[in-house]
Amino acid sequence: MDFVKMGEQAKEAARMLNRLGSEEKNRGLAAAAEALLAHKMQILEANQKDVAHAREAGMKESLVDRLQLNEKRIAAMADGLLQVAALEDPVGEVISMKKRPNGLCIGKKRVPLGVVGIIYESRPNVTADAFGLCFKTGNAVILKGGSDAICSNKAIVQVIQDALRGEEIPAECIQLVTDTDRSAALKMMRMDRYIDVLIPRGGAGLIRAVVENASIPVIETGTGNCHIYVDETADYEMALNIISNAKTQRTGVCNACESLVVHSAIADDFLKKLAAHLAEKKVEMRGDARAMAADASIVAASEDDWGTEYLDLILSVKVVDSIGEAIDHINRYNTGHSEAIITKDYANAQRFLDEIDAAAVYVNASTRFTDGNEFGFGAEIGISTQKLHARGPMGLEALTSTKYIIYGNGQVREM
Amino acid sequence: MDFVKMGEQAKEAARMLNRLGSEEKNRGLAAAAEALLAHKMQILEANQKDVAHAREAGMKESLVDRLQLNEKRIAAMADGLLQVAALEDPVGEVISMKKRPNGLCIGKKRVPLGVVGIIYESRPNVTADAFGLCFKTGNAVILKGGSDAICSNKAIVQVIQDALRGEEIPAECIQLVTDTDRSAALKMMRMDRYIDVLIPRGGAGLIRAVVENASIPVIETGTGNCHIYVDETADYEMALNIISNAKTQRTGVCNACESLVVHSAIADDFLKKLAAHLAEKKVEMRGDARAMAADASIVAASEDDWGTEYLDLILSVKVVDSIGEAIDHINRYNTGHSEAIITKDYANAQRFLDEIDAAAVYVNASTRFTDGNEFGFGAEIGISTQKLHARGPMGLEALTSTKYIIYGNGQVREM
Repeated sequence: MDFVKMGEQAKEAARMLNRLGSEEKNRGLAAAAEALLAHKMQILEANQKDVAHAREAGMKESLVDRLQLNEKRIAAMADGLLQVAALEDPVGEVISMKKRPNGLCIGKKRVPLGVVGIIYESRPNVTADAFGLCFKTGNAVILKGGSDAICSNKAIVQVIQDALRGEEIPAECIQLVTDTDRSAALKMMRMDRYIDVLIPRGGAGLIRAVVENASIPVIETGTGNCHIYVDETADYEMALNIISNAKTQRTGVCNACESLVVHSAIADDFLKKLAAHLAEKKVEMRGDARAMAADASIVAASEDDWGTEYLDLILSVKVVDSIGEAIDHINRYNTGHSEAIITKDYANAQRFLDEIDAAAVYVNASTRFTDGNEFGFGAEIGISTQKLHARGPMGLEALTSTKYIIYGNGQVREM
Repeated sequence: MDFVKMGEQAKEAARMLNRLGSEEKNRGLAAAAEALLAHKMQILEANQKDVAHAREAGMKESLVDRLQLNEKRIAAMADGLLQVAALEDPVGEVISMKKRPNGLCIGKKRVPLGVVGIIYESRPNVTADAFGLCFKTGNAVILKGGSDAICSNKAIVQVIQDALRGEEIPAECIQLVTDTDRSAALKMMRMDRYIDVLIPRGGAGLIRAVVENASIPVIETGTGNCHIYVDETADYEMALNIISNAKTQRTGVCNACESLVVHSAIADDFLKKLAAHLAEKKVEMRGDARAMAADASIVAASEDDWGTEYLDLILSVKVVDSIGEAIDHINRYNTGHSEAIITKDYANAQRFLDEIDAAAVYVNASTRFTDGNEFGFGAEIGISTQKLHARGPMGLEALTSTKYIIYGNGQVREM
């Protein structure tokens, strides 16, 4: 592939896209949505090739399911584009404008990032979703999906490109890296002249590879080793309900609870009740010595357990003697995602909110709420676990930058 | 050096620092300022060693001057810390708080980044300046200065660390990488487990090396190939005044004008006047064929000139036939720093502000205003030429992140 050409085309497309108003962008999204539905057979045929290859290669059926498209999933992709079209366009907003003593009016205006790169794994619906969010915010996007989904991704991108052309919008607003080898991914990660930000979406290995190798600014989305701390003043019923929800409502997600921290004053009593409660849901509990003493069903945790994101029906349990110890434990082992305290104590609630270092810190609620839709953003490109640019669920605004616009009337600098 | 230990100490210091209120941080800054003055002889002695080494090694006197400290410069460093103490503390502000339909109150709170890494070149005053800005915003800082200034930097850091200890604040809020070889810089750039953001301050080579090698998120500060476009409706007097200011008021700075773009309808007449005007200031003008035709003093520009940041009394001149052509030229060759249009035309002013891709876009003012103090931020850690996290002059807010704080009363997620 000619990465330089791809980069230049993306930059040029981004410049054109920057000139479009929200109405024109929404027309492009609607046309793409319509085209996905109109060409669903073409997409499904391509997807069947991917699925056949995957099965030949012995892919697990649970992963084949993620790869597989059907009419309903294509309809959901189209619907996703229409939902993004309905969201408010953040681009163009002047966030602030101040007059300086010398008369200069200095405003800060929201603008597209330019060219966004996204590297992701098997699910082909990400192709349409990522395009929709980037396009709405005036960004050209360069996508690199997994090799498993290459035929599906090519078909989806082709259909969207044709739809854009039909609206006289540059087709290069969406481009796909079709080389599927590792060296292509590495080349993409070094395109800092052309790509303004790189967002990896996938497992820890993918994200690590991007962080290690990219010369482009990266937004790390990520793993969640999320904790719930049950304070000595916690309402038991609320705690049981929240822990059960955060651990079992969905286990394979980054905002699920993986570790419990319990105050020693209530550990015996509370953990017995919790063990009975979670046994019904077949959750394995792995605890330290004091947790094990509380209930016979709790097995021994190793040091590795404290740092593990299980994504499974397993929960580690640590008993502490104070909120300070709880905070230290959590700040040591968490991944900066979502952490919660269950308490009736005002000071402890405030201290937990202040001192826990994570994207989302909760009092008396489930960690499962860390999500763009739940936060009211309408859509989400990922959940950032880094501190630069965006932290937590990233909606449309996370795909924008700002520029200063300055209105003068002849001002020059004196010193 | 033990980089892991340094990283762990920095993280621990950052956690302690996060608990301090503005008053305590301001006391730390005042103590550091006082200590710099009280121990000026110790710092000057160390600095004399650096200066002696530099002269032995044949350093140019203009560079020796940047390296050299004196009582006045130390007083300015101390004063800088007091000025930062007087600024409003951005940390802790809750930027927004909204109630969701399920009753969750979701707030966005400004917090420190954590640990900031700064890699810079010779001037030892950066050591105190960078510490001041990072400390005020609750960040621990790991500094790596140039090998030329190592004795001075060690002395300054020692004095500040002692002052912090005196206030019972962890001395590791400021740490210096004392290994001066390139492999130490590379190791620092890979400390993504410990450092949250890396800011290079220096020449293009340093910045490029950091972008290429860092696994930590980088804020690129930078070079400025700044343009002024003189539209056909420009007021000549205003244009001459602004160009003269932006080109000659200081030449070695990133917001100085390096390139002029002129509409063909006024090129002959205007460039003659400008050439006469700039001849007095000994500015060499390098133009395209039409610019050369306007005045005999204008010499031929090569293709390289369009992309060059001269930092000298040289100005490239391009003649264009439309504002569209001007915008295309500027967007092709600029470095995303500061660009200006001189015009009386409303539509052209708005179009220039909309379509130019740069951190700061001016109408009828000098590019020299792109500066933290001129923008009213009170201080500046650098001028970002990238689009992620911060763009343009970076004040205290650029050294902060946010976290979501969520107040619930037992909410769990239903789907």
